[in-house]
Formats: sequence, structure tokens, C-alpha cells
Amino acid sequence: MGIQIERIAQDLDIINSFTATPDKGITRFTFSEPYMQARTYVSEELKKMGARVSTTVGGNLCGRLEGSVRGNPSVMTGSHIDSVLQGGRFDGAAGVVTGLEVARVMAEERIPHRHPIDVVVFAEEEGSRFGSVMIGSRAWIGKLSSDDLHRLKDPDGISYADAMQKAGLNPGDAPLLRPGLVKAMIELHIEQSLVLESKGLSIGVVEGINGIKQFGVTLTGIPNHAGATPMGLRHDALQGAVRVIAAVEEIAMRDMGGHTVATVGMLACEPGQVNVIPGRVQFALDIRDLDSERIDQAAQRILSVIQTTCRARGLAFDIKPRSDTPPVRLSKEVIRLIEETAQEKQIQVLRMPSGALHDSSILPEVTDVGMIFVPSKAGRSHCPEEETALGDIRTGAELLLGTVVKLAS
Amino acid sequence: MGIQIERIAQDLDIINSFTATPDKGITRFTFSEPYMQARTYVSEELKKMGARVSTTVGGNLCGRLEGSVRGNPSVMTGSHIDSVLQGGRFDGAAGVVTGLEVARVMAEERIPHRHPIDVVVFAEEEGSRFGSVMIGSRAWIGKLSSDDLHRLKDPDGISYADAMQKAGLNPGDAPLLRPGLVKAMIELHIEQSLVLESKGLSIGVVEGINGIKQFGVTLTGIPNHAGATPMGLRHDALQGAVRVIAAVEEIAMRDMGGHTVATVGMLACEPGQVNVIPGRVQFALDIRDLDSERIDQAAQRILSVIQTTCRARGLAFDIKPRSDTPPVRLSKEVIRLIEETAQEKQIQVLRMPSGALHDSSILPEVTDVGMIFVPSKAGRSHCPEEETALGDIRTGAELLLGTVVKLAS
Repeated sequence: MGIQIERIAQDLDIINSFTATPDKGITRFTFSEPYMQARTYVSEELKKMGARVSTTVGGNLCGRLEGSVRGNPSVMTGSHIDSVLQGGRFDGAAGVVTGLEVARVMAEERIPHRHPIDVVVFAEEEGSRFGSVMIGSRAWIGKLSSDDLHRLKDPDGISYADAMQKAGLNPGDAPLLRPGLVKAMIELHIEQSLVLESKGLSIGVVEGINGIKQFGVTLTGIPNHAGATPMGLRHDALQGAVRVIAAVEEIAMRDMGGHTVATVGMLACEPGQVNVIPGRVQFALDIRDLDSERIDQAAQRILSVIQTTCRARGLAFDIKPRSDTPPVRLSKEVIRLIEETAQEKQIQVLRMPSGALHDSSILPEVTDVGMIFVPSKAGRSHCPEEETALGDIRTGAELLLGTVVKLAS
Repeated sequence: MGIQIERIAQDLDIINSFTATPDKGITRFTFSEPYMQARTYVSEELKKMGARVSTTVGGNLCGRLEGSVRGNPSVMTGSHIDSVLQGGRFDGAAGVVTGLEVARVMAEERIPHRHPIDVVVFAEEEGSRFGSVMIGSRAWIGKLSSDDLHRLKDPDGISYADAMQKAGLNPGDAPLLRPGLVKAMIELHIEQSLVLESKGLSIGVVEGINGIKQFGVTLTGIPNHAGATPMGLRHDALQGAVRVIAAVEEIAMRDMGGHTVATVGMLACEPGQVNVIPGRVQFALDIRDLDSERIDQAAQRILSVIQTTCRARGLAFDIKPRSDTPPVRLSKEVIRLIEETAQEKQIQVLRMPSGALHDSSILPEVTDVGMIFVPSKAGRSHCPEEETALGDIRTGAELLLGTVVKLAS
């Protein structure tokens, strides 16, 4: 029988029936009620196929189909089901439901595997609730301590550790994910960009994951009366900020050879009144590239624009590094196996970098990692319009199944 | 004896002891408890000097010293004691305490006046509580009806009319302020800008009050993944908005001859996440000038930048007019009298526009109006740091006294 796309479609529909914003896309923040409903559904599906389900350090869900040889390292697949605010139906979920279907087919068809198969739902990949990305995978491999999980808080002041416990999840004395425990990990994910669609392809094979540097920038001027303060006597923090933000785009587009992407996605203006000159503006800067030197160059140029802009306008500035994730090269061996399988199945693929971060950028510290991309319609992602054709998901799932079977046999 | 600055300072101290935010500047919303305490203080001071005190239509306080000729129109002075959230000690209050002192001196020294002297505290000048500015003066001249006062509500849903009644104020069948009832009105107010300070002057004579046009602007692009969307394929609403906002400053500074001020004080970015390209940005545009044609020219140029920017970037836009207050020219005759009095007292003055709105922009419909500005330290206003030197207030009060005596004699 192999992959049955109807089952994958049903899994997607059910998971996406759980959202905090039913009319405005998918909002499924980690450990929230809709999140736990979706997580429970995945867990029950795993149990149905005979998997042993557990909560790992960091609150990830792991369902294991035991392999025929005791003690062998596992072959892992999976992704996440937490979302951004008003996000889409496929980001993360596509990798979870194809992982489920791969395991389901292997169990049903009794495909022999000497290695265990682990289907994983990583927790808080997006960072939407606790302000830091990929918490589940980082905790599992020991990069975040229990103290860290108590320190990371949501906007209501609830810590990651407390939220996990309140959701009924207790890893107990579950072990860390140490090197040697997993033979290889493959994550299927939507591309979240336009490259595959523009080339008419169904599959991308990810070579590496862009590094990211994020900064919080604050410009401080003098709030004053919008009517009574002549233009020449203003220290308008927003007028400074708009010059910097325009330069962010220009530097990424013109100076960095078309590789770097740089974004200001968040901006807050104080006091934020129609008739008051902004005295303070805070914004977030996000810079990504597969080459960490280019990230540093772009950051340096932007910081230098901040300095000159603020000097010219009599503004103070403060720049806080917020996150720094180096680029990651994925496993040459896993890439080779994916491409070999694709060739056997006559699937045309494109090697490409991932512009977005994934748990697969964390796991190379403990195992060999590969990623399969499926196209995003119009490149839309992190929005309700996010869409991937079921046909592409089926192709991806077949490629994932073939590769996992090879790795696990 | 003349003006006694110690009494003015004491009036200011007592009025400013009434605030809802004792450690964070002055918060005295119209008809609130601190407001009514301050209003009662002014009322009692007026009674002490023999004034007849009444509540007018709209809830303004009016204290009248009768003139020697029955039926003569009055000479009015005064300002407001309501404040913005966490505002300063002088905005409004300076005009009330100098008006009080002028009347006090005229009463004590039995300065002859054929016209009555009215000292007025206008209600809800700032619009901080009921979301609409200068309600007291507009109601008094009949521009707002009793129905309007029932319709205007604070954030708790309490109407202006009900709040007034709850505060114990009842105008009963008090008359509207019709043309002919007031000979002239002079308001002393802090400048709320840096012009007088930068020229080392104590007094500004206001020629007119800037007109204001406000617009709400929305730019709509496509929210998308900040990491995975190549720069060249983005429709980033914030990147469009920053070009427009930069142009707002450039148009006001370079194209409009240094008269127009244009401000973006408020900006909201959706979805407002570090890792999502902004799909929608809303901001408020505020344009002011003493010349309404220049306002329209500036608005036209800004709107044209919005069009070309959005066309070039594949963004949609929506522009909603939010308010439109025409410029107001003050009385040439009152300006002449103020300047003549200043010359006699050897006070150097500067003719200037008012960038901010005042009740004096409402009253020209019923009487001749003049305004006296005193400097604001560092131009700060609508904030706890708002400051005016007592020496400047004394000079302003002396000029106010001299002018009122001439008008009322």
C-alpha cells in the first residue's frame, strides 16, 4: 500500500482543528490548550500503531517503534506542532504528519528495521510563547539546563518548566539525547519560500541551515509636543529608526551579494500618541545567511548606520544581542541517501539552503541530520495563507519513507 | 504692589498637589477627584477676592468681578487645569494662576474697570478623559449640544454630562457664550516649544493657532517568513512605511519653507514578530501650519509618496482623514494692545504661531482673542519635566495685567 495521502490529510485536518484563533489561522502556542489537544492526538495515533510514547527532557513527545536489534541507535523523524501567532497549517505539522504516516506504513506493512524508529514532536520550535526558539530540542541535547527552563518565561511570567508541568507533562528522570543514541534524523518541512515553486519542483534537499543573529535595538530621543516643536529642534526617535530600517533592506539587497536576508519584524513606539513626537523606539533586527562571515559583515554595516544616524540626530542608542545561531551544514551521508532514494523513485530534487531555523539545526551536535523540503504556495508561511499541495506532501512522504527504511534496515 | 509671584507660585503648588500620579507628574483628568479639588481651590480663591463664581454650560468655572458699568461685555482671561496622563505642572495651570493673580491685584488695588473681569477654567481642554479636545469651550459657545455631552464617553463608558453631574456641577439654565457678551479674551499659556528659550525671550505674542490635519495610514503587504523569503520577493509593509515616514520629515523640513510641522507619533506593525516580515503597518500622520494651503500641499506631497512607494513595492494602502482643524488667526487689535503694553513695560516680545491647540482657538467665533506665551524649559511639555521659570511667569502676568486693565478700563 505505501503512503496513503488521505490519512496524512486527515491527520493535518485534525491537528489544525486545534487553534486559539479559529478564524485567523493557526495559533498553537507550546503547552497551551489547543497545543496539548493536538499533541494528545499525535500521541494516540502513535500508540495505535504500537509505538511506546514518552515525554523527553524539554517536553518533546517521542513515539518509538522498537527495532529488531536491541540497543541499536534509532532513526528519528518529526518536526513541531507549535506555531507563530496566526500562522499556517503546514509549518511543523507537515513533518509530524508525514513522520506519523511513515511509521504507520512501516508498522502496518511490517517493513523490517533493525533500528528503532522515533517519531518526535519537538516543543517550542517557534519561540512564540517563551521568546526563545527550539527550546525542546536544545533542552533534550543538554544545551538548556533545568534552571534555564525555569528562567525562560512567557509574557504572563509563567516559566517553561511550570507551563510544561501544568500541561501534565513530566519527563521525570528521562535521559538526555546523547551522541550515539540516534543514528540519523530526517525532518520534512515546508520550504517557506518561493524557490521550489518558481522552479516547478516538489522536493528540496537541504544542504545547510542559515545562521541567524538577532538584535534588540532601542533609539532614545526626546518626546515632545507634535504641534509646538519646530522640525529643526526635534530629537524624534522614530525618524531615526526609519533611516536605520531603510538601511537594513539596502544593505541586505545591495551589499551582501543577494545571500543575506535582514528583517525588522517588530517595532514599538513610545509614547505612541498621535500628537507626541516619539521619544523612544524599540525594534528587532534579524539577519540570516549560510555564511557566518556575511552575517557579521551585514550586522557591522547596520550597527554603523545606527551610530551615524544617532550621532546626526542627537539620539541615544542601545543594541542588545538577542540570539546568535551559527549556520549549520547537514550530513553529507544523509543528503546522499535522500538523493539516492529520490533517484530510485524518479523524483527530481534541488539542493538548497534553509533560510529558516529548524530543530534540525540543533540536532547535528548529536547525530547525522538531513532535511526534505516541500514547496510553499507563493512562498507564503507564518500566515493563514500558508499552503502546500497534498501531492507534494505525498511525494515528500514517499521519499522520507524510502530514506528512513534504508537508514533503519 | 502689582503682581506678586510668591502668590502665583503658591497657587501653582496647591493646584499641583492634586494629581492622580503623585510620583509621575500631573494626571488631572476632567471631573476626577484631583481635578475637582484643584477646581474648588480656584473657586475659593475667586470668592475670596469678591468674584461671583458660576459653572457655565459645558462645566467651565467662571469667576466674575463686576465692572462699574452695568451690562458691559466682560474681559476674559483663563485657561485649563485638566492635564494629559503624567503631564506637567504648567500646561493650562499657568494661565489659570496668572488670571487669578491679575484679578486679585485688580480687586485689591481697586483698579477701576468699566467691564467685568471673568477668570475662567475651561473643562477638558486636553481630551485626556473623553477623547475629544476643548469640550468645555465648545459646549459653552454652543458648538457641542447637550446631546453631544451625553454621547461623549470616557473609557469606562461614563458620559461627559454624567461625569459633570457626579462631580456636583450643574450649569442649570446658564446661558451660552454668545457674541457680544465678551469684549476680549486673553489666555496666557506655556509655549510648549523651544523657540522662546532659543532666542532668550520671556514672552511670545501668538498671531494664530496652527491648523491640524490628521490621517490614519495603513500599508498592507504580505507577511512571510523572515528567514526563508529572499529580499527581492518581499512585500514588507514596514519597509514601505519607513520610506513614507522619512519623506514626511523631508517634506516638512525642505519643501514647506520651515513653517509646517509633520509628525508620525504612532506606529503599529502586524503581526509584530521578530521572525515575520510585517504584513501590515498602521501609522498616524499629523500635519500643522498657520496656513491651511501649506497643510494641504504637505498632505498632498506625502500622499503622493505613499502612492509611489506602494506602487513600487507591491503594497496596498488606505488613508483615512482623522481630524481637520483649520488654522485660527487671533485678533489684530488684541495683539496690538498686548504689544503696546509690552513696549510700555519694556518687555521684548516675539510674534509667533501656536503649534498646539488651545481653547483660544475656539473662542474667536464669539470674541476677540489674544494669547501670551511664556517659555518652556528645553521645550518640554506634556511630561513631568515640563518647567517654566517663575521669573517668566511673573513677566507674563504683568503683561496680562496691563493688557486686561487697558481692555477693561
